[in-house]
Amino acid sequence: MNERISSKKFDETRSREEDALGISVKKSEDLPEWYTQVVLKSELADYTGAKGFIVLRPNGFDIWEQIKQYFDSKIKKTGHRDAYFPTLIPESLLKRESQHFEGFTPEVFWVTHSGTQQLSERYAVRPTSETIIHDSMSRWIRSWRDLPMLLNVWNSVLRAEIKSTKPFIRSAEFLWQEGHTAHASEEEAEKEVMDILLDYRDVMQGLLAIPVYIGRKSEMEKFVGAVYTTTLEAMMPDGRAVQMGTSHHLGQNFSKPFEIRFLGKDSELHFVWQTSWGISWRIIGAAIMEHGDDKGLILPPKVAPIQVVIIPIIFSQAKSTEVLNECRELEKVLSGAGLRVNLDSRDNYTPGWKYNEWELKGVPLRIEIGPRDIAKRSAILVRRDTGEKESVLLSDIASAAKNKLEDIQSSLWNSASERLRKQTQETNSYGELKRIIDSEGGFVKAPWCGSQDCEKKVKEETGADIRLIPFDEKPGLNSKCIVCDKGAKHLVYFARAY
Amino acid sequence: MNERISSKKFDETRSREEDALGISVKKSEDLPEWYTQVVLKSELADYTGAKGFIVLRPNGFDIWEQIKQYFDSKIKKTGHRDAYFPTLIPESLLKRESQHFEGFTPEVFWVTHSGTQQLSERYAVRPTSETIIHDSMSRWIRSWRDLPMLLNVWNSVLRAEIKSTKPFIRSAEFLWQEGHTAHASEEEAEKEVMDILLDYRDVMQGLLAIPVYIGRKSEMEKFVGAVYTTTLEAMMPDGRAVQMGTSHHLGQNFSKPFEIRFLGKDSELHFVWQTSWGISWRIIGAAIMEHGDDKGLILPPKVAPIQVVIIPIIFSQAKSTEVLNECRELEKVLSGAGLRVNLDSRDNYTPGWKYNEWELKGVPLRIEIGPRDIAKRSAILVRRDTGEKESVLLSDIASAAKNKLEDIQSSLWNSASERLRKQTQETNSYGELKRIIDSEGGFVKAPWCGSQDCEKKVKEETGADIRLIPFDEKPGLNSKCIVCDKGAKHLVYFARAY
Repeated sequence: MNERISSKKFDETRSREEDALGISVKKSEDLPEWYTQVVLKSELADYTGAKGFIVLRPNGFDIWEQIKQYFDSKIKKTGHRDAYFPTLIPESLLKRESQHFEGFTPEVFWVTHSGTQQLSERYAVRPTSETIIHDSMSRWIRSWRDLPMLLNVWNSVLRAEIKSTKPFIRSAEFLWQEGHTAHASEEEAEKEVMDILLDYRDVMQGLLAIPVYIGRKSEMEKFVGAVYTTTLEAMMPDGRAVQMGTSHHLGQNFSKPFEIRFLGKDSELHFVWQTSWGISWRIIGAAIMEHGDDKGLILPPKVAPIQVVIIPIIFSQAKSTEVLNECRELEKVLSGAGLRVNLDSRDNYTPGWKYNEWELKGVPLRIEIGPRDIAKRSAILVRRDTGEKESVLLSDIASAAKNKLEDIQSSLWNSASERLRKQTQETNSYGELKRIIDSEGGFVKAPWCGSQDCEKKVKEETGADIRLIPFDEKPGLNSKCIVCDKGAKHLVYFARAY
Repeated sequence: MNERISSKKFDETRSREEDALGISVKKSEDLPEWYTQVVLKSELADYTGAKGFIVLRPNGFDIWEQIKQYFDSKIKKTGHRDAYFPTLIPESLLKRESQHFEGFTPEVFWVTHSGTQQLSERYAVRPTSETIIHDSMSRWIRSWRDLPMLLNVWNSVLRAEIKSTKPFIRSAEFLWQEGHTAHASEEEAEKEVMDILLDYRDVMQGLLAIPVYIGRKSEMEKFVGAVYTTTLEAMMPDGRAVQMGTSHHLGQNFSKPFEIRFLGKDSELHFVWQTSWGISWRIIGAAIMEHGDDKGLILPPKVAPIQVVIIPIIFSQAKSTEVLNECRELEKVLSGAGLRVNLDSRDNYTPGWKYNEWELKGVPLRIEIGPRDIAKRSAILVRRDTGEKESVLLSDIASAAKNKLEDIQSSLWNSASERLRKQTQETNSYGELKRIIDSEGGFVKAPWCGSQDCEKKVKEETGADIRLIPFDEKPGLNSKCIVCDKGAKHLVYFARAY
């Protein structure tokens, strides 16, 4: 019944591909190529038939789910609730806040037809949902009793990208969450902006083991329509920064055009104060670059969908049942201890092949168990990050595995923090700033007068922009702007960025 | 700092709205109006500024999450994995399976521009993802070791609707899951189609307490591009059917144009056998119509995001701390017993107002607790479905609440099953079929010859179509088609449908 086709050529392709399971370049020598190979070969994502769009494959999706569960349960505890809003936004709604519209319109995908009919009004495929959510809020909010309104949406947004696609870091569509809140006072809204920024920092640092700096964006770099934008910035091994998330204070910039008013306890009508904030799957891209090595991905244990993989070592068919039973028992014990475990019992791959595959896929801890281990009532624990092996008694294995995973998490955190420290330099000299950006990259802290002319000059001449204005660091007394030599208002972090 | 506006008119609106918290029509007298009021007033969903599109509000989203978790964990146990595919599909991909393209093209939203630039190829906003997923599968599947490939996506799809919007039942965009699988043999694919259909039936019957019939669709009603479609059909109180989900056998209809081949154990290349299947938020709409009453929503306990609401009865400020502490204790006990509990401790609403609100929102069980109850170490349990009240000792409350919830679940199931039984009739007379469809509605079982002419005639003359061809019921020997009097091949279920 099946159509059969000569399979010779196909066989050749297959074996070439199997040879190429590993990563063929060193991370330190060619980060972009290394990154692409890791993403594709560990099956996190793939390119698609739609140019600029990627697929999130199950291995990648499971990581996103971990992040989602962690953050979602965190914000639910503070009263935020999830909802779903339409993918298409009428042009008239998108236009209602004019700066916002102008900022987004160059990258909007426009729907003009349904079936064969031209629409009377164009729809934007959502680039972000402020406008359509605020339109709903204007109907839902009536009195102070309806506030604060704390909404969150897990969805995807689309922005036409002219630059080339880099999975997770830059693509025409990405998964993210967008939070949208309305408050009775400006103080409350500003507190929300900061609370969420700190929740985000906990996702980056606590879950993904990526150290970040936090601060405000400059006026030029803020979200279009916001009063101000706060940001989290990480540094990649190649010296380029990644913006990990943003939390915006919208003030009343949207509530006025969208007429979102509430009857206060004072029996007067007031416009609400608003925030919006988002993190996307881009942070998966940053985690890959931050922690991976020449063998492939290294996932921080807290975010790893599979924390421990068990590999049965089977030499003879005679012993296979015994080994597999022991592995199943072990799987139960570890799951029971709250660990995310996978028993790789496939019989069509060798243990060595499996080691390579799970190393490529970044599983933090491997347990090898064969007849000799069983005889000794022990198993071998192998750390993904250091390769270190240790024989552990089966009776101690749950606590040993937990300890190892904690060690791995802090070890990844420590290396990343150490690297960030090294990649953060400070200077008062523009020449030195240029030299650092050109040769080493990384963050360069420097005093700045606050003018957009100086900001643009640095951007044009070095490719670096102001990644953030820290909350708690100020320029020294009498310190001068690194560009124009006028008095410095801020100490800012310059870097080239993804 | 706030702009203040005369609030007189606003106040009047507000109090009119508060008066109108309850449902103003009877379910039995005007189901469509009752339905719309329940959806809007219980804040499950709302209309939007984009015509034909709805918002899923947090109360509705939480129900969808319950369904999602239930079904997702079920299919993950059988090896299915979640992924995410692009929202936009290039026209050339959508066209590759011609019947599929023709079937969907009238309802596709087309993206023609990005920013100000016309695209060289139009993109469809996905109406379903077979084409873009099969395009990826053609790259991912190489050998029998890659099979079965069992993918699932939780996303939204868009289909331009010319008819009017009915939240959950019909809108231009809806949330759903779409499963897409590839198998080495036709037998395996057909087993998957049926396994999923039975998993779906468990969602409908076990979770939502909605009895369904299962069977095949006729050729005319099957999914465009499928070999055959299986379906689950429920019956609403007004006599109209709702299609609750479908599971399709795609055979090799897509694997051939998309060239999805695998190297078999026989070292030959074969085209894979495929399935696809989906359920959408429409089933929430069916649950609303199935179980609700004149006070509003009644959620089956298994799917209710809040199963138990605790209402403190506070008369004097003096006792309020004691009552609230007792309520908090109770909340802990019930959560600890695995129930989903909400303590409504708001001090700006009366207990009576809260009763109405939570009844409207369909919470299956209410617990009232005041100083007199505390003195007796008891609390009052009130069933949402029957209104029945019972005083229960605090020491017994977790098991009493669990029992009540189970009773409610089976009581809803029993009523629904009884109604379905009454709404299913059988006849051999076309006149009688017309009479039933016109007067009572419901399912009419009748023998059918299998010809599309007869099927179309019934549709044109009565508005009823063939909802399903059951797997296990056959027409009697020598039985004649209800329309043309030729020999009957099938016993089929006719009904008008949503």
